[in-house]
Amino acid sequence: MTETIDVKPETEHELVLARIIAAPREKIFRAWTDPEILKQWFVPKPWTIARAELDVRPGGKSLIVMRDPEGNEYPNPGVFLDVVENKKIVTTDAYTDAWTPAAKPFMTMILTLEDAGEGKTRYIARALHWSAEDVAAHEKMGFHEGWGQCAEQLEEVAARL
Amino acid sequence: MTETIDVKPETEHELVLARIIAAPREKIFRAWTDPEILKQWFVPKPWTIARAELDVRPGGKSLIVMRDPEGNEYPNPGVFLDVVENKKIVTTDAYTDAWTPAAKPFMTMILTLEDAGEGKTRYIARALHWSAEDVAAHEKMGFHEGWGQCAEQLEEVAARL
Repeated sequence: MTETIDVKPETEHELVLARIIAAPREKIFRAWTDPEILKQWFVPKPWTIARAELDVRPGGKSLIVMRDPEGNEYPNPGVFLDVVENKKIVTTDAYTDAWTPAAKPFMTMILTLEDAGEGKTRYIARALHWSAEDVAAHEKMGFHEGWGQCAEQLEEVAARL
Repeated sequence: MTETIDVKPETEHELVLARIIAAPREKIFRAWTDPEILKQWFVPKPWTIARAELDVRPGGKSLIVMRDPEGNEYPNPGVFLDVVENKKIVTTDAYTDAWTPAAKPFMTMILTLEDAGEGKTRYIARALHWSAEDVAAHEKMGFHEGWGQCAEQLEEVAARL
C-alpha cells in the first residue's frame, strides 16, 4: 500500500496526487516510460490499455489508448514537454504531436520522483488545467480515486521489476 | 522589401506569413533571439517593445512587453517549446513559464528559416490556434498586416547586423 502525503497545489487550477511508493524512482520511471510496463498499471482495473506508444523526450509524441470492459477504446494523444531521467516527466494533451494543437487543451501533468529513503519514492503527480471548469470536471471525473488506484497498481508492478 | 510567397496552412486553425527576406538565416535567428535586436522590429511602429527577456531553449521563458504610442504596456509571457539554431523557433502563450498554464492559451508560433540562395531566407511563420474562434479573431486583429509589417522591419534591422 502506498502512503498518502500532504502536498498542496502550486498553481491555480491544479489537482495533486502525492504518495510514498515502496519502489525506487528508477523503477517507477521505467514503469512510466516503457510501454509494455505502463500497460500493466496506467488505468484503474478492469479497464485496460489497448495500445501505448511513447517517444520519451521533449517534443516526443505519446499515444495511450484506454479500453473499457465493453471493449470501447479511448485514444489519448499527447506530447512530452520535459523529461529528466528518473526524476521528472511533463506531458500535455494540448498538442497531438509537436506542435499540432489538440481539439481541446485539457491538462498538463508534472510528475516528480524523489528519494524517500529505504528504497522508497516521494511520488508527486500534479494535474494543471487552463480553467476552473476543467479542474472541477477532472475532480468530479474521479481524479483522486482514479490516480490513487493507479498509484497502487504502479507500486505492485514496480515491485516485480 | 520582402517578397511574399505562397505557403498554405498545415493545420486546421492556422495563419501563415511566408516571405523571402533579404538576409541570411543566421542574422534573422539573431534578430529573434537577442532581446536588444528583437526590440527594434518586433511590433509594428509606432508601437515599441518596452522590455524583452528571452531564455532561448526548450522550456525557457519569454516575456515581451509591448507599448502603445500612449505609453500603455501589454505584457506577453510565453515559453519556448523548441529551438534549433538558425533554423527553427517554436513558442507558445499557453504557458507563462514551464509549465504554468496561462489564463488563456491562444496560439503556438512555429518559425522556420531556410536558405533561399543569394544570402536570402525563406521565412515561414505559422500561428496555430486551438479554436476556430481564436484564428478568426487573430485574423481580424490584423495578423497579416501586423506580421507583414514586422517582417519588413526585421529585414531592415537584419541588413544592419
